Amino acid sequence: MNDLEIRPASADDLPEIVAMLADDPLGARRESPHDLTPYTAAFELLTRDPQQRLAVAVRENRVVGTLQLTFVPGLSRRGATRAIIEGVRVHADERGSGLGTVLIEWAVEEARRQECLLVQLTSDVSRTDAHRFYERLGFEPSHIGFKLQL
Amino acid sequence: MNDLEIRPASADDLPEIVAMLADDPLGARRESPHDLTPYTAAFELLTRDPQQRLAVAVRENRVVGTLQLTFVPGLSRRGATRAIIEGVRVHADERGSGLGTVLIEWAVEEARRQECLLVQLTSDVSRTDAHRFYERLGFEPSHIGFKLQL
Repeated sequence: MNDLEIRPASADDLPEIVAMLADDPLGARRESPHDLTPYTAAFELLTRDPQQRLAVAVRENRVVGTLQLTFVPGLSRRGATRAIIEGVRVHADERGSGLGTVLIEWAVEEARRQECLLVQLTSDVSRTDAHRFYERLGFEPSHIGFKLQL
Repeated sequence: MNDLEIRPASADDLPEIVAMLADDPLGARRESPHDLTPYTAAFELLTRDPQQRLAVAVRENRVVGTLQLTFVPGLSRRGATRAIIEGVRVHADERGSGLGTVLIEWAVEEARRQECLLVQLTSDVSRTDAHRFYERLGFEPSHIGFKLQL
């Protein structure tokens, strides 16, 4: 893990982040890496929202990983704030390097700093390798994740 | 559904909301309805966060339902904003009345107004009645929901 830095994403990182979102069995059908316009608009929204952390992992000036962390206050569980992880990606060149673990551990540490009581995420039922990965990191598959496309 | 109103929660609604959170097989172990201090602090956080909607359903001046809706911008899916539903509760007196459907339909309509492309939620694997309910409303159980307690 030498020379690896995890830092907030900047607008300059967008092409590399979007390329990683698209280089994925599910992402390939959903993303448009050759038209960054919608991503630039969404990046602006993320930047203005103090509850958002869009992080990148950088090694030797290359973006090799990303995730998004959102802090959600709430009444349940005695007013617990929870952290939600979305959009986890590790560059194809780095898979199996332990970078996924470093990214998730960074997110969990950030969540602790924000005094969250819970970190949660959903993973498509087809991503069985990811499920084993999250269970190894101590996450419990205690819920069903429902989605409704609008 | 006569005389039913869905409106933003106010601080005065907190005792009734917390009583509903606690009147639940899982909530009974997690909530402290006789000490509102942590809920009042969390309510302040919700009020200050423009991405949050804490709603109550009110009938004849009684709070009979609640849910929390959070808008989460993001890069995935071409910069889609998603809406996350949490803390859905219907008062014991109102179960089977269709109020749950009204609440979720209100949340979906709010999500459309905010131009969200997706509405999502997680439900504990033990809540099998809730799963059938969400599937009837068009939600797909496409994901596994992982949680890590901090």
